[in-house]
Amino acid sequence: MSIHLTLIGIGTGNPEHLTLQAIRAMNAQDLILIPHKGAGKDDLAQLRRDICDEVLSNAKTQIAEFELPVRNEATLDYRQRVDDWHDAIAAVWQGAIDSHGTARRVALLVWGDPSLYDSTLRIAARLDPAPQIEVIPGITSLQALTAAHATVLNEIGAPFIVTTGRRLRDEGWPQGVDTVAVMLDAGGSFDAIDPKGIHIWWGAYVGMKEQIVIEGPLCEVSTKIKETRTQARADHGWIMDIYLLRKS
Amino acid sequence: MSIHLTLIGIGTGNPEHLTLQAIRAMNAQDLILIPHKGAGKDDLAQLRRDICDEVLSNAKTQIAEFELPVRNEATLDYRQRVDDWHDAIAAVWQGAIDSHGTARRVALLVWGDPSLYDSTLRIAARLDPAPQIEVIPGITSLQALTAAHATVLNEIGAPFIVTTGRRLRDEGWPQGVDTVAVMLDAGGSFDAIDPKGIHIWWGAYVGMKEQIVIEGPLCEVSTKIKETRTQARADHGWIMDIYLLRKS
Repeated sequence: MSIHLTLIGIGTGNPEHLTLQAIRAMNAQDLILIPHKGAGKDDLAQLRRDICDEVLSNAKTQIAEFELPVRNEATLDYRQRVDDWHDAIAAVWQGAIDSHGTARRVALLVWGDPSLYDSTLRIAARLDPAPQIEVIPGITSLQALTAAHATVLNEIGAPFIVTTGRRLRDEGWPQGVDTVAVMLDAGGSFDAIDPKGIHIWWGAYVGMKEQIVIEGPLCEVSTKIKETRTQARADHGWIMDIYLLRKS
Repeated sequence: MSIHLTLIGIGTGNPEHLTLQAIRAMNAQDLILIPHKGAGKDDLAQLRRDICDEVLSNAKTQIAEFELPVRNEATLDYRQRVDDWHDAIAAVWQGAIDSHGTARRVALLVWGDPSLYDSTLRIAARLDPAPQIEVIPGITSLQALTAAHATVLNEIGAPFIVTTGRRLRDEGWPQGVDTVAVMLDAGGSFDAIDPKGIHIWWGAYVGMKEQIVIEGPLCEVSTKIKETRTQARADHGWIMDIYLLRKS
């Protein structure tokens, strides 16, 4: 018998990013799965637990924690490495669900929103039998970043692109846009572009109490951003940051 | 004395899109301003009132409605027309705030999120004296669309662009991306591109109880989308739709 799987966007680490819809969905579950990401990222598992403690009022909703598999860095092909990893995660989910044999309604709490640089939907598609899937939208890090800076993503009627640090580094400034939002940057990929005339709005841990934001002309603040990022990563053991670049 | 102005993202018309942060912010206000958009869009003013009725528990929070000025379509230059309109809206806000002379904390409820194809921040920048501005992020129509279809915005590690119907019509498929999200389409701008190999995920009134979604190969569903859109607009007197296009 197939399960009903709900992927619940929970925002970027501020428990107040939860929507009323997310809270209702959490309380409609038999089982909520929470991943451990291993040393250094325990903050995030604890945040999920705290969120559950705060909003779960249905005594029948169980919580199961599972160890998130690690990627096999020996697999050289990036796509293959990710595919294998997703297979392994799906198997661990399946094991956790099977060990709660009566659970029909199962949920995962997804940072940000399940549509944006997140693999939960792709992993869910690997479950067999295929679950019925429902998605509850969440506050994204893009929204948390722009809110922190009280700025906008797009100029009037203009487009913007959302891309990765790797792409910015490898391919330079994307064609046809004056605004670029960069996610999943391992650090300082903006060094690959000419900073002249570019403004940056940067944020780490956006929406969380640890939030750090820096903005200004890229040529003036890029060093400060890189130093701040390195220090913050050392202090917390992990970092999630995001930024918006705009040509003036 | 300057005011503290909070722009509160309230999601796409589903009262359950409200975050706990938005609810707390609403209850911290002296005054919440609600626009009337004139005939046909009264649904939206009523939705804002319903949201206030549902979540406001602070008896000191007042609600003031104001008539949203209309754009002067006689002004031929698009940018000038928008600038004049924003000036007029700022003046109406100022009047509404002044008529509640003691209000220091004032909020506007913004559909979706204040960063995404929304002018509230630009209008707020026109107030004199300049207010202190705070932004509360909200669920965007992009998130409501992808949630409705249980699909993702980006492929693994790949970029996507967010643009307007006008741009798609005038400029064709943007360079360098396989995924395009289109907002503010006056209808059927996807007719301007070659539909071969393109999948579309379309939604109107996404997140609301009136939600309609259609997805499939663009060449198979484009006519159905256009007919559905025309009918829905006639039925409701207004429409807001959005779609995602992806090259396979």
